Amino acid sequence: MVYYDITQEQLIQMVTEAVLLEIKKAGSNVVPTGISVRHIHLTREHVDYFFGRNYQLTPRKQLSQPGQFACEETLDLIGRKGSIKKVRILGPERNKSQVEVSITDARMLGIEAVLRSSGDVEGTPGITLRGPEGLLVLNEGVIVADRHIHMTSADARRFGVKDGQRVRVQVEGQKPGIMDGVVIRVSDRYRLDFHVDTDDGNAFMLSQGQLVTILK
Amino acid sequence: MVYYDITQEQLIQMVTEAVLLEIKKAGSNVVPTGISVRHIHLTREHVDYFFGRNYQLTPRKQLSQPGQFACEETLDLIGRKGSIKKVRILGPERNKSQVEVSITDARMLGIEAVLRSSGDVEGTPGITLRGPEGLLVLNEGVIVADRHIHMTSADARRFGVKDGQRVRVQVEGQKPGIMDGVVIRVSDRYRLDFHVDTDDGNAFMLSQGQLVTILK
Repeated sequence: MVYYDITQEQLIQMVTEAVLLEIKKAGSNVVPTGISVRHIHLTREHVDYFFGRNYQLTPRKQLSQPGQFACEETLDLIGRKGSIKKVRILGPERNKSQVEVSITDARMLGIEAVLRSSGDVEGTPGITLRGPEGLLVLNEGVIVADRHIHMTSADARRFGVKDGQRVRVQVEGQKPGIMDGVVIRVSDRYRLDFHVDTDDGNAFMLSQGQLVTILK
Repeated sequence: MVYYDITQEQLIQMVTEAVLLEIKKAGSNVVPTGISVRHIHLTREHVDYFFGRNYQLTPRKQLSQPGQFACEETLDLIGRKGSIKKVRILGPERNKSQVEVSITDARMLGIEAVLRSSGDVEGTPGITLRGPEGLLVLNEGVIVADRHIHMTSADARRFGVKDGQRVRVQVEGQKPGIMDGVVIRVSDRYRLDFHVDTDDGNAFMLSQGQLVTILK
């Protein structure tokens, strides 16, 4: 048996690419699912605040979207009613800090659940972040991410959909059904992936990478 | 202004009955939603074990199904990975003890999520319960309750469905969609109610009592 010197990450990448290639061949409307657990995006300024000036976040795992990565670093979320420890930071830095939680998390924290697309944080609830050496109060930035599908413009042509369009997605399995109002997000920097949070994932008993169908 | 001497519970009961009456009048396929938070059903023997011989559970709130009530008494759930404190016991006693959790809860506890109808606990995972004065290891009994609609035989005739049939339920709102595979449960002891757990409730952003539609 021959062992090649590749990392588990490279292997996952290769398998993912192979699956995506098969999906495209089939000419079907299927899309792999990515379930997002609660996480934090920080500005450069807030990385400095928590970890020191010019600190570089430590990549732990590449995510499905090119250039995005989960970091070794975590922070605690502190709400009025409860707190959640060790919530992972995702890199790279963004121009606004943002905390993405499920509605289940929001209730546990005692924070209003506001459904938004990533980046659209104006007027959303705030939260307190606790790092290894300090607290930071965000005045806004807590969102429940609206279900969405990342795709390239080539994917969009193939599916016959446009950026910003809302579609229905069919899920099979033990808890089957249809998620409606799923936003299409098109950019050639994206890779095809249906992003839901853990509430959606658990309600539909989805597993990471499970194939679902865009309904026309 | 005249104040009548009724409890909040009686008021809720009256409003519920009035809503159900309106629903029936309309001749439509709408059903009110009841979201079940994690809870525990105990046998008479296990009530004795935790609280003392012939102890009577203390009703705190009547539930939508006639004769069912949430109790003042709670127990802690202890799993391999985590524990959940103060989980409410529902009365009256049953002939098998059963713990109903969401998939989110099951993950937090480190227990396999097994989808079952209430009462069907054979071969399901076990759990440790912690009471005020002791621990009890259940060898089985942890289920994720399958989505279902309680109704009377008159409701079933009106909707044109049968006991055990699976239907689709349409949800409107900010996170709309369709739950498929929803089990119809018919008994003249029931009252019309669509029962989901907190994962379904949060994924579809449902509120307690929200009206949903049975699709034919």
